[in-house]
Amino acid sequence: MDVIRIGLIGFGTIGSAVADYLLNNSSYLKKKTGADFKLVKIAEKERRKVSSRYKGLLVSRAEDIIDDPDINVVIELIGGIMPAKSYILKSFAHKKHVITANKALLAEFGSDLLCASKDNNVTFRFEAAVCGGVPIISGLSESLVANEIKSVLGIVNGTSNYILTVMEREGISMREALKIAQKKGYAERDPYLDLEGVDSAHKLAVLVNLAFGFYPKFSDIYYEGITSISNLDIKYALELGYRIKLLAVAKRSTGNSIEARVHPTLLPLDHILSSVRGVYNAVHIEGSLAGKLLFHGKGAGKNPTASAVIADLVNIAEHLGRKDYINRIARDSRIKGLRNISEISSRYYLRFMAVDRPGVLANISGILGRHNISIASVTQKEKGRARSVPIVMMTHEANEMDMKKAMAKTQKLKAITKKPIWIRVEG
Amino acid sequence: MDVIRIGLIGFGTIGSAVADYLLNNSSYLKKKTGADFKLVKIAEKERRKVSSRYKGLLVSRAEDIIDDPDINVVIELIGGIMPAKSYILKSFAHKKHVITANKALLAEFGSDLLCASKDNNVTFRFEAAVCGGVPIISGLSESLVANEIKSVLGIVNGTSNYILTVMEREGISMREALKIAQKKGYAERDPYLDLEGVDSAHKLAVLVNLAFGFYPKFSDIYYEGITSISNLDIKYALELGYRIKLLAVAKRSTGNSIEARVHPTLLPLDHILSSVRGVYNAVHIEGSLAGKLLFHGKGAGKNPTASAVIADLVNIAEHLGRKDYINRIARDSRIKGLRNISEISSRYYLRFMAVDRPGVLANISGILGRHNISIASVTQKEKGRARSVPIVMMTHEANEMDMKKAMAKTQKLKAITKKPIWIRVEG
Repeated sequence: MDVIRIGLIGFGTIGSAVADYLLNNSSYLKKKTGADFKLVKIAEKERRKVSSRYKGLLVSRAEDIIDDPDINVVIELIGGIMPAKSYILKSFAHKKHVITANKALLAEFGSDLLCASKDNNVTFRFEAAVCGGVPIISGLSESLVANEIKSVLGIVNGTSNYILTVMEREGISMREALKIAQKKGYAERDPYLDLEGVDSAHKLAVLVNLAFGFYPKFSDIYYEGITSISNLDIKYALELGYRIKLLAVAKRSTGNSIEARVHPTLLPLDHILSSVRGVYNAVHIEGSLAGKLLFHGKGAGKNPTASAVIADLVNIAEHLGRKDYINRIARDSRIKGLRNISEISSRYYLRFMAVDRPGVLANISGILGRHNISIASVTQKEKGRARSVPIVMMTHEANEMDMKKAMAKTQKLKAITKKPIWIRVEG
Repeated sequence: MDVIRIGLIGFGTIGSAVADYLLNNSSYLKKKTGADFKLVKIAEKERRKVSSRYKGLLVSRAEDIIDDPDINVVIELIGGIMPAKSYILKSFAHKKHVITANKALLAEFGSDLLCASKDNNVTFRFEAAVCGGVPIISGLSESLVANEIKSVLGIVNGTSNYILTVMEREGISMREALKIAQKKGYAERDPYLDLEGVDSAHKLAVLVNLAFGFYPKFSDIYYEGITSISNLDIKYALELGYRIKLLAVAKRSTGNSIEARVHPTLLPLDHILSSVRGVYNAVHIEGSLAGKLLFHGKGAGKNPTASAVIADLVNIAEHLGRKDYINRIARDSRIKGLRNISEISSRYYLRFMAVDRPGVLANISGILGRHNISIASVTQKEKGRARSVPIVMMTHEANEMDMKKAMAKTQKLKAITKKPIWIRVEG
């Protein structure tokens, strides 16, 4: 019988859930997997975080785990770049398998870490880093191993999705919805990483690597959050048959390049991703053989995340007998790099706020036309009591750079009273 | 480098897709997995099915594969119970790992086959048997290994789901929708296994085993297909905020029993399963840690199925170095058996066709009341030119046996002109 001796670095919310699970379910896991999982050390600086029943396992330095020759598996759950990165690299050097949930680290240094794990012939797993309990990492790298991936579209930030859901349901502003989310514990006090799209971009970097065998430079990933989304646009989009979602988009593009971008996106109501509500996450994958797949579930929370960490642990246990590193995430040398956002094509939703006087529509559509942007539909709303009226347009496919230039020009029109809104459309 | 020598039994649609994939992608697979996959023999009785480029691999008897000591992995794709069962058992006895897509065989003899594979310390995989390209088998047994599963709800028959989708969209009858499905290749000439729920029940048997560690006797699984569903009920259900789906339901129930049943089911429109359209499949799982998960994708077709077979093959390759059998599907000895359908509780949708005269509603509701069935809502439709009017009811939770008795009694009422319709409600 294999004995898996585990060292846990970081005893926060997720770390304690993992420890509790291992403590309470060792006989179940033994029966299910034939292996004996033993949590032998916990490294946590804030000793008061660690409940008394784990005091016997507590060590003060991560090195007490990393340098322990009896430990096979290190679970890193402290988050952040440093010292997590050096802990993981040292664990590899000491021939330990590593599990992490650290998406920021993977986004920035995933390529280095994967290489180091390979060089040391150990396993490196991170199911919990993307979408918590949703098995998207093993889905992409294992279940879809036979497929050339065409695209990955994901709602991968529960906070943003919850806020958009509440804005639509209650007809309230982003700011009001954020307050509700914070009250419910769905948004942090400083929600920047979530609302500005950074967290989604971290996850997208990991997904791009798994889907396309190419690790993007994190700074090359375009991201834009939901802070500029108003409930007016949510309402108009719905009237047109679309719902606004914060989408992480990755696509195989022309010239062996990859598109990777995070931004608010109009999705048709009959697209399955548009029915993803509240704090749920979902990833939609198109593969060459399997066709279109959707994985949907809870993307955060201590239990879903612990579920993913344990799955990784069991997988490592199953592979302990192997002599070779399993090179599931092979580099695809054909891929040249990420396409710059200015080079992409998309359909767009546009909203202009304009003084209601003759010639405005002609001016706007003239500018669009001169930038090769073809209009698919226009709705001018009733004026009501406001000084300016909303003009809502859907375009045919257009180039992003053209759109950017056209929007800058329309903004300068005298009749335009606010910065025009433009949102990409998918599906 | 590991060399995986593969024997393929059965060269039908899926078999040829698997062979083509292995022929065209061996260098890709080698790069991705480090293993060398070689298809070395194909057993197919109908020699004319096998295209010329495979003639060199063709053998006439399955035994030529099973008895070949150089073959590590047997892929069984002939379907049906015999001789598939004996081929698989013999392969195990010859220490070969086996992959199958044979859900009927798994439903009837899965328990025996799993035991035999364990006794022979070989791997037995069948991702392709349930929902084709959707990784529900590895999802349940690997990604969710840490979870106690509470329930599994699945739309696992694409033909039935397509027909229900078309009936709703076009407002046509089952018979007309079936014709369209047959024309499109989505329904077989003899659609019995699909429309009567047998295929769904086969898949449910496999899912129950993975979810609850208990292999049900196939004959204990209750199933009922969609042949009695009329577009009238689809329409009335929609008016009430529900959509009718053929659902495979498995739940942990009281007294360590399991509910396992297949039947048309009303699902609330905001339940994510109700948005599964056309030939798509989806399985909704509730786990103790991961919470609610949905897997959605194409459940049939040669490419999605081949995708699953190749994923199994790669998994086997990864485990070749292992000395032990991996006991992922451990038996849960607490589970006593399946709950009989008459013992379940559910909410129900009821439709009566009644002559429009005083006292009918009182008669019906009197019978329901005497059988402990409490009515949540009633709608009596306008008469129009028909002799009888539809009375549509939604009940609160009631016992199935009570419902059955009550329905038999209402049917005897003089004012009732047709057999009453009763459909279970979920979610």
